[in-house]
Amino acid sequence: MRTQVGIIGAGPAGLLLSHLLHLRGIESVVLERRSREYVERRVRAGVLEQGTVDTLVEAGVGERLKREGLPHHGIELRYGGAGHRIAFERLVPGRCITVYGQQEVVKDLIAARLAAGGDVRFEVDDVALHDIGTDRPSLTFGGERLDCDVIAGCDGFHGVSRDSIPGGVLTEHRRDYPFAWLGILARVKPSSEELIYARTERGFALHSMRSPEISRFYLQVAPDEDVAAWPDERIWAELRTRLETVPGFALATGEIIERSVTPMRSFVAEPMQYGRLFLAGDAAHIVPPTGAKGLNLAVADVRVLTEALARFFASGSAEALDGYSRACLPRVWRAQHFSWWMTTLLHTFDSDDAYARRLQTSHLDYVASSDAAGTTLAENYVGLPYEESL
Amino acid sequence: MRTQVGIIGAGPAGLLLSHLLHLRGIESVVLERRSREYVERRVRAGVLEQGTVDTLVEAGVGERLKREGLPHHGIELRYGGAGHRIAFERLVPGRCITVYGQQEVVKDLIAARLAAGGDVRFEVDDVALHDIGTDRPSLTFGGERLDCDVIAGCDGFHGVSRDSIPGGVLTEHRRDYPFAWLGILARVKPSSEELIYARTERGFALHSMRSPEISRFYLQVAPDEDVAAWPDERIWAELRTRLETVPGFALATGEIIERSVTPMRSFVAEPMQYGRLFLAGDAAHIVPPTGAKGLNLAVADVRVLTEALARFFASGSAEALDGYSRACLPRVWRAQHFSWWMTTLLHTFDSDDAYARRLQTSHLDYVASSDAAGTTLAENYVGLPYEESL
Repeated sequence: MRTQVGIIGAGPAGLLLSHLLHLRGIESVVLERRSREYVERRVRAGVLEQGTVDTLVEAGVGERLKREGLPHHGIELRYGGAGHRIAFERLVPGRCITVYGQQEVVKDLIAARLAAGGDVRFEVDDVALHDIGTDRPSLTFGGERLDCDVIAGCDGFHGVSRDSIPGGVLTEHRRDYPFAWLGILARVKPSSEELIYARTERGFALHSMRSPEISRFYLQVAPDEDVAAWPDERIWAELRTRLETVPGFALATGEIIERSVTPMRSFVAEPMQYGRLFLAGDAAHIVPPTGAKGLNLAVADVRVLTEALARFFASGSAEALDGYSRACLPRVWRAQHFSWWMTTLLHTFDSDDAYARRLQTSHLDYVASSDAAGTTLAENYVGLPYEESL
Repeated sequence: MRTQVGIIGAGPAGLLLSHLLHLRGIESVVLERRSREYVERRVRAGVLEQGTVDTLVEAGVGERLKREGLPHHGIELRYGGAGHRIAFERLVPGRCITVYGQQEVVKDLIAARLAAGGDVRFEVDDVALHDIGTDRPSLTFGGERLDCDVIAGCDGFHGVSRDSIPGGVLTEHRRDYPFAWLGILARVKPSSEELIYARTERGFALHSMRSPEISRFYLQVAPDEDVAAWPDERIWAELRTRLETVPGFALATGEIIERSVTPMRSFVAEPMQYGRLFLAGDAAHIVPPTGAKGLNLAVADVRVLTEALARFFASGSAEALDGYSRACLPRVWRAQHFSWWMTTLLHTFDSDDAYARRLQTSHLDYVASSDAAGTTLAENYVGLPYEESL
């Protein structure tokens, strides 16, 4: 069996890549370890940058997104007993974010691939990469073999792709935060129309949503927190304590339908390629979710990779492919910095002394009161323009 | 002997306070431990915010400043083999900084005080504060006694004022940086018209100036650096290595006429007052010099204190005086945060791993390329508007 691009992973990165390549007349096969049901239900990110929405719409997979996605024109920073709105419509006119679950993006992309006769294989066992340092790489899985011109590793942080690169090729940067996020989905109308990023002495809390009927919440917890220690009542009590800090705000509660603990970490592998293997999304880099950059960064990678692959297959020249990592990394590091910045702005650190807490408050006051500082948050949050040049 | 306001310290804070009070018809006596020659030659800060210049000009002590001060409409961030200008005229139109040595401000203020018959005493020994918790405080020095309505502690970080406040009243916040600045004055025309903030793998360097004939340089060095370990040749060689990193830039050298090592630290005492004693400037707070905020913050304090004292002597009500610290501290903490921000943006930390260095580079790239981020630097550097309300 043979294809032009073997894609490992049917998450947003792998599926979008397969779809964009199809639009350029390039064929691919997507191999996914999990079932279709699993990936279509996997709860992850839910905040789409303006550029991510534009990319999906331009690629013809944005119809439901436009219908069901919730455009947001601001977020609230809540601390010190007051809420401070970061107003996108004023600070970054014409740009906003759209709340639409990652699993919805995945559903839309799978539907589009299958409707176009695309080859997306689920529950594929034992994927292995071969000869990635040559121009004849291949994939094996479940007794089959797929010869490729190029392999795209879109299989996330724990996938096999990155680990298939020989030792010494990659420089891996890693930073672990001394806390995690306890995240829940609840069947309840959101208590606020916009996201609330709350900084309290007890730690950070985020009020978010997935739809007009489903709310999403996060609580800063210990890094090794046991989700079993958080029965419903404790979760709601803690969310109330951290969010009901401004006059008139009451938290609506409901059935908790999902709960999990997410470690907070940063990771970058450089370069994002080796031979004919190209890493995209979480396979190459991880950010803490505070800045909502993970999914959006995967889309940015895939845009660059699509363009490089299109040039490669049109000309036979590998020049654009060789420049893939170099084109992606400035945006990757910008997202790393922004995610670190949002995280340190809003979380409680055990190592903080009173001086550090005052600096944090002054920083929040500045972001809330200066248009320039508010714009640094807003322009990163809605997404900086794509500037990749291959 | 009696006066309305006893002022300890004839630095910029104490002298400006005495002058501004005089303009309001309030009498004061300034007591200074050092000689007039010493304070008029003491080399310290040299970058005046727009508001500091406006304050001095409005107070009638800005004639020489307007004539000899060097207005700067931008600074350069130099790193990664290129220079990036932060253009004040575009980012913060109508606002700039003025390069004018602190000792020149001190000379102008002393001249103005003496011309107006002001009482400024130099080489005063053994100043002590008494009864500051009552409404009849007094100062003693060299066998004399000065009864006051109010005492202003403008005697710097190591002065006696802050230490005269009873234990338990103040909360003191302190942060020491793991490096110092080796500063020199050199008799040589500046090699660049504007200040250059250089970040290199070997540490930070700053190219500054005091006049068209006198250059000022700083090098990041170890916190316990011995100035004797830095003969002229070593200083110039290190400055060349850190500053001659862009094509076409050559460092002009000359006679070194002053050299010293300055520790880098942050300090805030809260509140900035006790009873009838009010602290202003370095007596209450210290910042690392990276953001050039120390002198400017002292001027901001003195503006607030002048207004509060004017109301006090006009009405007999202490309400405005009681609000002094509360009115000053938001600007103090803004300067603390900005100074920390500029310091961490530009210095090398031994504790930094490769990830931290990449974040720093990405942060610099962002400040250099985003108008919003550039404006956060520019608006703090030229000075945010005064917003104190008593």
